[in-house]
Amino acid sequence: MISQLIEKIQKTKAPICVGLDPMLGYIPEHIVKEAMAQHGETLKGAAEAVWQFNKEIVDHTYDLIPAVKPQIAMYEQFGIEGLIVYKRTVDYCREKGLVVIGDVKRGDIGSTSAAYAAGHLGHVKVGGTMLAGFDTEFITVNPYLGTDGVKPFVDVCSKEDKGIFVLVKTSNPSSGEFQDRLIDGRPLYELVAEKVVEWGNQSMDKDYSNVGAVVGATYPEMSKILRKLMPRNYFLVPGYGAQGGTAEDLRYCFNEDGLGAIVNSSRGIIAAYKQDKYSRFGADHFGEASRQAVIDMVADINRVL
Amino acid sequence: MISQLIEKIQKTKAPICVGLDPMLGYIPEHIVKEAMAQHGETLKGAAEAVWQFNKEIVDHTYDLIPAVKPQIAMYEQFGIEGLIVYKRTVDYCREKGLVVIGDVKRGDIGSTSAAYAAGHLGHVKVGGTMLAGFDTEFITVNPYLGTDGVKPFVDVCSKEDKGIFVLVKTSNPSSGEFQDRLIDGRPLYELVAEKVVEWGNQSMDKDYSNVGAVVGATYPEMSKILRKLMPRNYFLVPGYGAQGGTAEDLRYCFNEDGLGAIVNSSRGIIAAYKQDKYSRFGADHFGEASRQAVIDMVADINRVL
Repeated sequence: MISQLIEKIQKTKAPICVGLDPMLGYIPEHIVKEAMAQHGETLKGAAEAVWQFNKEIVDHTYDLIPAVKPQIAMYEQFGIEGLIVYKRTVDYCREKGLVVIGDVKRGDIGSTSAAYAAGHLGHVKVGGTMLAGFDTEFITVNPYLGTDGVKPFVDVCSKEDKGIFVLVKTSNPSSGEFQDRLIDGRPLYELVAEKVVEWGNQSMDKDYSNVGAVVGATYPEMSKILRKLMPRNYFLVPGYGAQGGTAEDLRYCFNEDGLGAIVNSSRGIIAAYKQDKYSRFGADHFGEASRQAVIDMVADINRVL
Repeated sequence: MISQLIEKIQKTKAPICVGLDPMLGYIPEHIVKEAMAQHGETLKGAAEAVWQFNKEIVDHTYDLIPAVKPQIAMYEQFGIEGLIVYKRTVDYCREKGLVVIGDVKRGDIGSTSAAYAAGHLGHVKVGGTMLAGFDTEFITVNPYLGTDGVKPFVDVCSKEDKGIFVLVKTSNPSSGEFQDRLIDGRPLYELVAEKVVEWGNQSMDKDYSNVGAVVGATYPEMSKILRKLMPRNYFLVPGYGAQGGTAEDLRYCFNEDGLGAIVNSSRGIIAAYKQDKYSRFGADHFGEASRQAVIDMVADINRVL
């Protein structure tokens, strides 16, 4: 699966993904009003607003980008109705030729991780039939439970040609609280990185592994070390833009071949119309604002590659 | 919320919860057949079988126990249809007077954790209306992202009288891979435990905190230390029975007041009819087998308290 993602990155010349993390506050009023008029102030109404918002953004950006990264929490907050729209978004993006990275951060003991892996990446056996639940190309995985919690995801990657990104060093301010603590003189995230290499070796796909790593853009010195530790594991890089990461900070996430990382931006793209820089588009043309923000982000990143 | 759970534990004299983790392989054939006859070999068919299975188990055990712990992965594997049955199960258990601990192991950066907390424990604001998504009493939370990833859950605990159990030391074989690594001479799980105390102090409810800890039954020596480190944080204890933890192993999870822990059993209860010990009930009376297994588990644990 990673080779398919790389191919799309090379074709679009855009090592980025758009984070479809639609907080209600990001959605223009005319969309919310219309959805509430149809469904009232209900979870269904909220979910409908999210769907209309997503569709407009995907329609205005899909030809420029290789992938999207919906954050499932933003859908789960609206319960079942939200998850129906998560699935609808996944399917729509697939139709548009996009790779979908489900940002689900799942992880549990072995048999439970196997269920998550089946539901999000693979298939579940019902009677004699293999059925897909959410069927995304990639998901993110939390490593706190160790190898037997991650292995079922890796197995599905190999068996069904899918991929995962394991949390190594996250972009948030308190990520260091546990991740940076020294073990035998080295931070925990380096130990996790070494395991990612080990897990990754079990699911190679041409030059890179289907097992990648989440490495935040907000800690460039750490990216430099992690890039060397995990030369064949792709990085999913959150934290660019709204969270404070700059294009310069990203340089170290890439290998010399210009590959090795895909940078996410959520708010910076999907709520672009709210920024002074793109306010000329107005809320009515928020999709066009997002398109311009994608073009600008790609140029910004390619500048340092 | 923890005081409500304690009250129910004292009333039932059963410091246990039943893990509603319905793998299809656990469900008696007559239920699966009936569901498939109605809906075919579809996700809806699988979900219907899960629902019928859950209902029978809850109907046969609800008067003996304080709480259930549905593992959301077992529902998520069937996509939207599975999650509809997760919600249905939550609502049904609530009607039966049970506390519901959603075993979701969520955790992300701050704004994302806030969305999970709203969806699973609290309410989300849609227009001027506050709406609940899954609305469980407790959920489990993964601490790998540190304080700013956990704080939004704690805030909802205080605001909406709910609770969480943070993963400290999990029951699986490879849990030690990261959790046991020494930092300044002490294992990572002890550092997490100290943070649990800190987070917990922000949401006290009488003698205990709404912020508890997941501590596996499979590592009794560690439970002993963790019990002392977190005297006012309730333990949710997986690993009893099928995973190898015995009643003797559990002793250290409890405080001297006989409180402080709630022990989960999943397979050992819900698939009891498959054990030699309960085979006399047969698949047709699997609910009664589960009831007997609950009675036996409660006696086994009370023996060591």
